[in-house]
Amino acid sequence: MSRLWERLMRLAEIGARPDGGVDRQALTAGEIEAWRLMLGWAAEAGLEAATDDAGNLFLTLPGRDRSLPPGLIGSHLDTQPNGGKFDGAFGVLAALEVVSHLGFTPARDISVVAWCNEEGCRFAPGMTGSETFVGLRDLSTIRALRDGDGVVLGDALDALHAAFPTLPRLPLSREFAFCIEPHIEQATLLEEAQLPIGVVTGIQGKITYEVVLEGEEGHAGTRDMALRRDAVMAFARIAARMQREVGEADPVVKFTIGMVRVEPNAPSVIAGRLVFRIDLRHPDNAALLAHGARLEAIAAAEAAPCGVRMTRLVHAPSNSFDEGLRARIAASATRLGIGHMDLLSAAGHDARHMASRCPTAMIFIPCRGGVSHSPLEWAEPAHVAAGAAVLAETVKELCA
Amino acid sequence: MSRLWERLMRLAEIGARPDGGVDRQALTAGEIEAWRLMLGWAAEAGLEAATDDAGNLFLTLPGRDRSLPPGLIGSHLDTQPNGGKFDGAFGVLAALEVVSHLGFTPARDISVVAWCNEEGCRFAPGMTGSETFVGLRDLSTIRALRDGDGVVLGDALDALHAAFPTLPRLPLSREFAFCIEPHIEQATLLEEAQLPIGVVTGIQGKITYEVVLEGEEGHAGTRDMALRRDAVMAFARIAARMQREVGEADPVVKFTIGMVRVEPNAPSVIAGRLVFRIDLRHPDNAALLAHGARLEAIAAAEAAPCGVRMTRLVHAPSNSFDEGLRARIAASATRLGIGHMDLLSAAGHDARHMASRCPTAMIFIPCRGGVSHSPLEWAEPAHVAAGAAVLAETVKELCA
Repeated sequence: MSRLWERLMRLAEIGARPDGGVDRQALTAGEIEAWRLMLGWAAEAGLEAATDDAGNLFLTLPGRDRSLPPGLIGSHLDTQPNGGKFDGAFGVLAALEVVSHLGFTPARDISVVAWCNEEGCRFAPGMTGSETFVGLRDLSTIRALRDGDGVVLGDALDALHAAFPTLPRLPLSREFAFCIEPHIEQATLLEEAQLPIGVVTGIQGKITYEVVLEGEEGHAGTRDMALRRDAVMAFARIAARMQREVGEADPVVKFTIGMVRVEPNAPSVIAGRLVFRIDLRHPDNAALLAHGARLEAIAAAEAAPCGVRMTRLVHAPSNSFDEGLRARIAASATRLGIGHMDLLSAAGHDARHMASRCPTAMIFIPCRGGVSHSPLEWAEPAHVAAGAAVLAETVKELCA
Repeated sequence: MSRLWERLMRLAEIGARPDGGVDRQALTAGEIEAWRLMLGWAAEAGLEAATDDAGNLFLTLPGRDRSLPPGLIGSHLDTQPNGGKFDGAFGVLAALEVVSHLGFTPARDISVVAWCNEEGCRFAPGMTGSETFVGLRDLSTIRALRDGDGVVLGDALDALHAAFPTLPRLPLSREFAFCIEPHIEQATLLEEAQLPIGVVTGIQGKITYEVVLEGEEGHAGTRDMALRRDAVMAFARIAARMQREVGEADPVVKFTIGMVRVEPNAPSVIAGRLVFRIDLRHPDNAALLAHGARLEAIAAAEAAPCGVRMTRLVHAPSNSFDEGLRARIAASATRLGIGHMDLLSAAGHDARHMASRCPTAMIFIPCRGGVSHSPLEWAEPAHVAAGAAVLAETVKELCA
C-alpha cells in the first residue's frame, strides 16, 4: 500500500506548514486544490465525480446494479489551522485506494465521500456537510455562517463550485446501503493495547457553547478598579471555576475552551466584550447534561458586573454504531490476521450523523501519543496500510 | 472658538466608526489623511511643516529670533481602534488654533507637534515618536516593531513619509524652550469638582508586561484532562489570582489585561500558546514595583504545567511636571477667570518624556464620565474652548 502513503504525503503538501503541520481549512483555496488532486486520481481510476449543494465531494465506482443504494466510505479533506497530515485525509485516501483497486465490479455503486467542513474551525460549528446532508441543518442556515474575516460560507461554497463548473450536483439526503468512516483514533487506547485496528462502538456526546460577556470599555490607566466592568476579568473568574468544578471533577469528562476573542483587544483598553467557546464531551448523556448545567450556573454566577449570554451551538448526544457492520469489520480484521479491539470514540465524526440513515461504523488506526489537531500528528505506514486493508476486505464482502 | 470645534469634528470624520467612535490607528491610511488635513490648515496659517525620522509632525510659526529654541505645544493624532474624537486630537488642534491666531509674531518659534504612535495599539508599546525623539528608544528598535498582521513599523513609517515627499526631515533630539500638552483628563476629578481646567502635577508610573504561556496543542475531544497543558486554563488561573491579589488589593492601583491572543484559537483544539499584556499603574514608584513583583510571582506559581515567560515591555516611573510652568498655566487660567485645580494624571502621555528635556506641563479638560478610548468619549465645547484659551494665554506670556 505504498501508493496510499505516497498520496497521503502528496495531499499534505497542500496547505503544508513550515512546522510539518497542515493548514487546509474548509472552503479555502487549499481545499479547492485538494479537490483538483482528488479528481485527477478519480479520473485515473474511472470513478464518477459529483458534488452536492452542501459542498460534499463524491467519487463513485459504478456497480453491477446501479439502481441499488450505493455504499459510502470516506471522511473529510479539511484540517484545523494547525492540523496534521492524517485527520480526515487518511479516511478519504484509504477509501479512494479501496475503490480504485477493488479488483472486480461491485454489486452496487461504492462512493468515496469527502464531507465538507468537518472541522468547523473556519466556519463554526463544523460538520456542515454531513449535517446538511442528513437534514440536521438547513442549507440556508449553514450558508449564512461567517468566518473570522466576515466571509459568508455560502459565498465560499459558491467559489468552490465555480472552480469545478462541470461537476454534476447530486441531491442531498440520498439513500446509502452502508457507511464506513476510517479515521485516526486521536487517543491512545490502540497505542496502549499495541493493536492496529479499532472497531468503533460509538461516539461520546458533545455540547458546544458560545458565551458572550458584555463589559464596558475604558482607559486602563484612569478607570477606577471598583467601577470597572472588565470582560477579561469576568472570563478569568468563569474559566478558572469551570476548570475546577467540571474539568477536574470527573475522570471521563473533556472540557476545553479553545477559542477566546477579546474586543477591542488593545493593551491599554479595558475589554468591553469577550466571546469564547466551550467544548464539553462525555460518553454518558446524563453526565453530559449535568456538567452542561453546572457550566451554565457558573457563568451566571461569576459574570457580574458583566452581562452574560450563553448559547448551545451544538448538542450531539452519544451514539452507538451498527452491531452487524461492526461484527463484519472485526471479522475482516481477523481474516486478515490483523489485531483489533472495540473502543469508544472520544472525538466527533461525520459518521455520527450517517448512523441515523443507514448501517454505519468506523475503523480507527492508532496515531502516535494520541496527538491530533497538531503538526505532531503521526500514523505509522503499517497502520495506515492495515486500516485500508480492513476497509477493503469489509467492502469486498459487502459488495461481492 | 467654534472654528476649533468644527476642526475637531472634521478630523473625527477620518477613521469615523458607525458607532460614533474613531479608528485612526498610527501609520495607517487614516493617519496619512489626517496629516494631509493638518498640512492644509498649516499652509493657510503660514506655518512651516516638517517631520523627523520617527514620524513626528511639526508645524512651526516662525518667531522674531529664529536662533532661540522653539516652544512646543501639541499631542498626537492616532487613536485606539475603538477610540473617540478627543484623545490626542484635542491637544493637536488646540495648539494649531493657538499658533494660527496668536495675533503677534512671537519672540521665538512655536511648533505644534503631533507625536507618532502614542497609543501603541497597532505597534506596541506605543509613544514610539516621543520616546525615539528623546532617545529612550533607538530608531532601529522601533522600526522593527510588527503589528498583528506582521507589518513592520519601519515600512509603515516609510509609506507615511513617501506620501509627503517634499516635507523636510528635521533631526531628532532638538532643543525646545518649553513643552505643553493639552489633553482630555480621561478620569473624573475635574467633572466631580466641576472645574474646566486641570493643571497636571505629574503622571503615575506604569509597567507593561507581555506574558507568553507555552502549552501543548491537542484534540479537545480525546486528550485526557490530567495530561493536558492548556494555555487558556493557565491564563484563567493566573488572571483570576492577579485580579484578587493585585487588582483588588489597593484602592489606587490600576491593573488591566486588555490584550489576549490564543493560538491556534480554534473551538476544538486545546490552546498550545497564549500571549497577553498587563498594564499596571500606580502613582507611587515603590508600590508600582511591589505590585509588579507580585504579578511576576503569581505568573510563575500558576503557569504549571504550562511554561511561562514574562517580559517588561515598558517601565515608566511616575514623574512631576515643571513647577514654574504649572504656576504660569494656573495664573493664565486665573487671569481668564476660568476655574482650575491641580491633579495627577493617571494616564501616560508623550509629555512624560519631554519633561526630562525642557520645562514641561500639561493642561487637562474634563471628559464626560471619565470615559476615554471609547466611542462614548466626549468633551463639552465650552471646555474645549477653555483649554485652548488657557494654552493661548500661557503661550502668549511665554513668547511675548
